[in-house]
Amino acid sequence: MSHTPRKAIIALDLGGTRIRVARLDERLNILMRQETLTLAEQGFAPVMERLQDLIQQALPQDGPPVAGIGVAVPGPVNPATGLLFSAENLPGWDNVPVVSILQERFGLPVFLGNDANLAALAETVLGAARGCQNVIYLTISTGIGGGIVADGKLLLGHEGLAAEAGWMFLVIDNGQPVILQDRASGLAMGQQARERLARGEPSLMHTLVDGQLDRVDGRIVGLAAQQSDALALDIVYNAARLIGVGVASLVHLFSPEMVVIGGGVSALGELLFAPIRQTVRAIVMPPYWDHLRIEPAALGEDVGLIGAAALVVTDGGLGNMADISARLNPNQG
Amino acid sequence: MSHTPRKAIIALDLGGTRIRVARLDERLNILMRQETLTLAEQGFAPVMERLQDLIQQALPQDGPPVAGIGVAVPGPVNPATGLLFSAENLPGWDNVPVVSILQERFGLPVFLGNDANLAALAETVLGAARGCQNVIYLTISTGIGGGIVADGKLLLGHEGLAAEAGWMFLVIDNGQPVILQDRASGLAMGQQARERLARGEPSLMHTLVDGQLDRVDGRIVGLAAQQSDALALDIVYNAARLIGVGVASLVHLFSPEMVVIGGGVSALGELLFAPIRQTVRAIVMPPYWDHLRIEPAALGEDVGLIGAAALVVTDGGLGNMADISARLNPNQG
Repeated sequence: MSHTPRKAIIALDLGGTRIRVARLDERLNILMRQETLTLAEQGFAPVMERLQDLIQQALPQDGPPVAGIGVAVPGPVNPATGLLFSAENLPGWDNVPVVSILQERFGLPVFLGNDANLAALAETVLGAARGCQNVIYLTISTGIGGGIVADGKLLLGHEGLAAEAGWMFLVIDNGQPVILQDRASGLAMGQQARERLARGEPSLMHTLVDGQLDRVDGRIVGLAAQQSDALALDIVYNAARLIGVGVASLVHLFSPEMVVIGGGVSALGELLFAPIRQTVRAIVMPPYWDHLRIEPAALGEDVGLIGAAALVVTDGGLGNMADISARLNPNQG
Repeated sequence: MSHTPRKAIIALDLGGTRIRVARLDERLNILMRQETLTLAEQGFAPVMERLQDLIQQALPQDGPPVAGIGVAVPGPVNPATGLLFSAENLPGWDNVPVVSILQERFGLPVFLGNDANLAALAETVLGAARGCQNVIYLTISTGIGGGIVADGKLLLGHEGLAAEAGWMFLVIDNGQPVILQDRASGLAMGQQARERLARGEPSLMHTLVDGQLDRVDGRIVGLAAQQSDALALDIVYNAARLIGVGVASLVHLFSPEMVVIGGGVSALGELLFAPIRQTVRAIVMPPYWDHLRIEPAALGEDVGLIGAAALVVTDGGLGNMADISARLNPNQG
């Protein structure tokens, strides 16, 4: 039997702090990787140049042909036009035709996705949700982002704007609807902590910041909660409960087999996951709970690279996930 | 050029009160239709027999071959197994293998869908959302049901349980999450009216029911609202506002081009639609509003038959809607 040489995939993860690049094989094994500082404050052109240099270095010299370049960016993208609308941490990156710029330079197929969507894709093909066809991915960090795999495909919506799970309206206070992100993100937890500390509630957090209340953020709340501080635990519990209510709505809308939760706040582990699971179990209809799992993200900091590469092997997230996942190396991830 | 004879499609709409059947051509023109009373109280076997008799009568005698039978049922179905889990208005219809029963009897491909999903499909291929790829359909009647077309395909989820938009958690009262349906359905509006009338609030509704408060239901609230009764208008406005908040969450999750609202309560027209649109516009992110329309359902009582037939021509809702819609007769609907 003749051996068909496999193609290489180039994956790029553009972040506000770092740009990562990797060369992978078609089973998404990472063969080489490299990274550099983004230096986003220099504006669009130098960052785009650095990014292209990294891709150039990752291209195989005389190795297998390249199937395509997958790019993860920290902002909303339109998969139909290959445009990045904007990125909060990348000044000057507004309405950038990333796909056409890179296609012109490298003469290869280019796929573009936003980081939360690509994390959903990566966790589905190689991570915690491997083998699932219906997956909700939530990232709980400063904000709350989402990515969704529905009926085996990445959910995109008109202009690629779907899956903004952090913007579900959840609570109505004095007639005003409030989104999940404004109550349960790291930023929201920090703000709730500062307000309650300022009112004089006793807490370890006073000591952790040497009495400088403005230094209390989501990270400090997390540190205090891990040391069993009652106020921090209460704030984490309330946020987890609201996340659970949001997850329950998502479960009724998508009937997923798996909810994967990542992002910095998810490092709190069971302090976060136990009340999320309890809330969901208490309020979703039983047939939905029977097939549901709620688990931490599995892929760590490679999630962006793997998601970007997965875009290439899934034809932009549109291939059937279960089929694709079965093809990939089971020892990965 | 030789003429390829078109295939016929048989559509069946099983309701708690009536069973409707139709023969359609592949462009979803209705060629013949017939209906009979369900007499659901007789239980499973007689209803299944009536339904099969109706299909038998709708089959073309010596006309074109039949592409398949599409069936709309008033309860959750699993498209993978062809099973109807249950149907509130059909006693004895629990875990019925509708697809295999009909396939065995007629030797034709059979597709099964629940009524709200099929209304979404019908409105997308031939109704208010024609040509759209991302559609939210809500039916506001006694309860609140939903059907969703996402990225050009009917959203199904694990075991077909997705799109239950009436079960989104929306309000948190005294720490208890409440679903949209329990606050904004016809049933909820009737209950709110009875409570407020019992507290002595003045209203035309007292007269409309001859003082018999237990006769006040969603329909009575609607009648009074259409006569500008202040209490009824307030109840409708509050429900519409909550529906608007729910729609705003759905918009952030699916980025639809169209939200279609049907069901008995939608007959209130602008009394319902104006506050829904105002609420959505006030709280969704601007890029989502720019491409969004919120419109009444267009297909009337044929929606179930057209949705069931659409299941056949879309291979169970999985074909691409825009392509399919373009193939259909533009004078339909």
